[in-house]
Amino acid sequence: MSIVVVGSIAFDSVKTPYGQVEKALGGSANHFSMSARFFSDVKMVGVIGEDFPDEHLSYLTDQKVCTRGIQKIPGKTFYWKGAYQDDLSEAQTLSTHLNVLAEFNPVLPKDYTQVDALFLANFDPDLQLKVLNQVKNPKIIACDTMNFWIEGKLEALKKVLQRVDLLTINEGEARLLSGEKNLIRAVKKIERMGPHIIIVKRGEYGAMLYNQGRFYVVPAYPLDTLKDPTGAGDSFAGGFMGYLDKSGDPTNEQNLRQAMLYGTVMASYNIQDFSFNRLKEISWNDIDRRYSDLQKVITL
Amino acid sequence: MSIVVVGSIAFDSVKTPYGQVEKALGGSANHFSMSARFFSDVKMVGVIGEDFPDEHLSYLTDQKVCTRGIQKIPGKTFYWKGAYQDDLSEAQTLSTHLNVLAEFNPVLPKDYTQVDALFLANFDPDLQLKVLNQVKNPKIIACDTMNFWIEGKLEALKKVLQRVDLLTINEGEARLLSGEKNLIRAVKKIERMGPHIIIVKRGEYGAMLYNQGRFYVVPAYPLDTLKDPTGAGDSFAGGFMGYLDKSGDPTNEQNLRQAMLYGTVMASYNIQDFSFNRLKEISWNDIDRRYSDLQKVITL
Repeated sequence: MSIVVVGSIAFDSVKTPYGQVEKALGGSANHFSMSARFFSDVKMVGVIGEDFPDEHLSYLTDQKVCTRGIQKIPGKTFYWKGAYQDDLSEAQTLSTHLNVLAEFNPVLPKDYTQVDALFLANFDPDLQLKVLNQVKNPKIIACDTMNFWIEGKLEALKKVLQRVDLLTINEGEARLLSGEKNLIRAVKKIERMGPHIIIVKRGEYGAMLYNQGRFYVVPAYPLDTLKDPTGAGDSFAGGFMGYLDKSGDPTNEQNLRQAMLYGTVMASYNIQDFSFNRLKEISWNDIDRRYSDLQKVITL
Repeated sequence: MSIVVVGSIAFDSVKTPYGQVEKALGGSANHFSMSARFFSDVKMVGVIGEDFPDEHLSYLTDQKVCTRGIQKIPGKTFYWKGAYQDDLSEAQTLSTHLNVLAEFNPVLPKDYTQVDALFLANFDPDLQLKVLNQVKNPKIIACDTMNFWIEGKLEALKKVLQRVDLLTINEGEARLLSGEKNLIRAVKKIERMGPHIIIVKRGEYGAMLYNQGRFYVVPAYPLDTLKDPTGAGDSFAGGFMGYLDKSGDPTNEQNLRQAMLYGTVMASYNIQDFSFNRLKEISWNDIDRRYSDLQKVITL
């Protein structure tokens, strides 16, 4: 089992009501990998600058995450600075320096092209298409996107959607992409654009799975302390895709539902600390325990 | 088994993106009763004016809802006019005429005082206290409230909370009442004010049950067509309290969880049409079918 993730690798400066960090490790590919590594062999594709710490690459390698797909090029690593208000529901972007990400040209190492699962994190749909042209029949292809591409590169995004099995998207973006205010209608309209599995991310309310007419809804894990929601969606996707890949049958409804729980568990750990500090500390025991606690919250 | 509901009886003029009604039947006691009647013997307490249609009282009586607790006094029935925007999440009040509700003095008929379950809908906490002084040891006492009383009559409300088993409250109000932004902390703080069972109503995201340290979260039933959210909370409470009362053991965790599902089912029917028109049409078969469909949406 193996899973390729293509996405951003970043330095994040984040301020929330519970503290702040300067130039902490972040980016979608990082949050995804730090979560998915518990479930499957992860291969990362992304770009970093000369300022990126070798220690983190070594750490990933020690965790059996393959980093050969990470390109190091002249310049600085992508930098994002943001802040969250009291309710932590929406990030306010204070500054974005694309730096080397502006030159990102995803090229998969040869052994990455025969992968079981592919996750295209949120980035330029033209580049997502480039990646799609390099892989050979993964069992499952998933992608993420955001309002920026829906508004700015809809035609390219539509081409991507025609070629993926699964889309992860937040509520507001699902409404924007479909033009439907009602979320159930929105999801059914997005299905007609290509993906037969759609996960709607609802922040503190959890996530909704749609698979060919069937809905499955999971709440967020109830936490009385959380510090930083940055990367919640990507760590969810990491747990979700990681479990699906591990299951061996990634379009089976039962596996999809269980994957929703693992995604929920991993996202809950991600947001308990800044960056992916908490994901670094936990073990399989922690994941098992919280999976069991989550089941108690949702089981009749 | 019997359940007393004390609340408003109203004419509602409502406009939503899906249509509008003028002076339709409404009010918390009405929505609650139209829902709870499927589960238990309901006794209504409220006040109406001379303009209230006898036909509706006859209809309720035909449905085995006792209306002897409804006082008819000189003047006009409470009138509310409101509108909802596209997302249906929040009502905008356009006008409120208290009319006879301003003179509401709840007096329970003698046979209402020995009731199994009591629901105090959202009204003046001083009057809620008056009702509490009239009942003799119900198995369960529940109340609702709103920001208006939290901001304007907090001391009276706190006295009510000390004497109820269960509080139903929406998210924003839970945060306001507790002074806690985090919902989990908010609920635990409200528990220390009295009620050991708390239901947080989350609109399109469903509802959360808290019972002495345990959480249970249920999503809203996925609907692709809904017309009017007015009364959703009260029809939820009707299904919830109705089932609890029917169960015979209203503080049992398993019964509380099943009651959450029945509340969700009844609210979903309530919002499918204006007023409680849809609740008038459905039968037990419809409730059973949707209960079963809801289970498919939440079961692993």
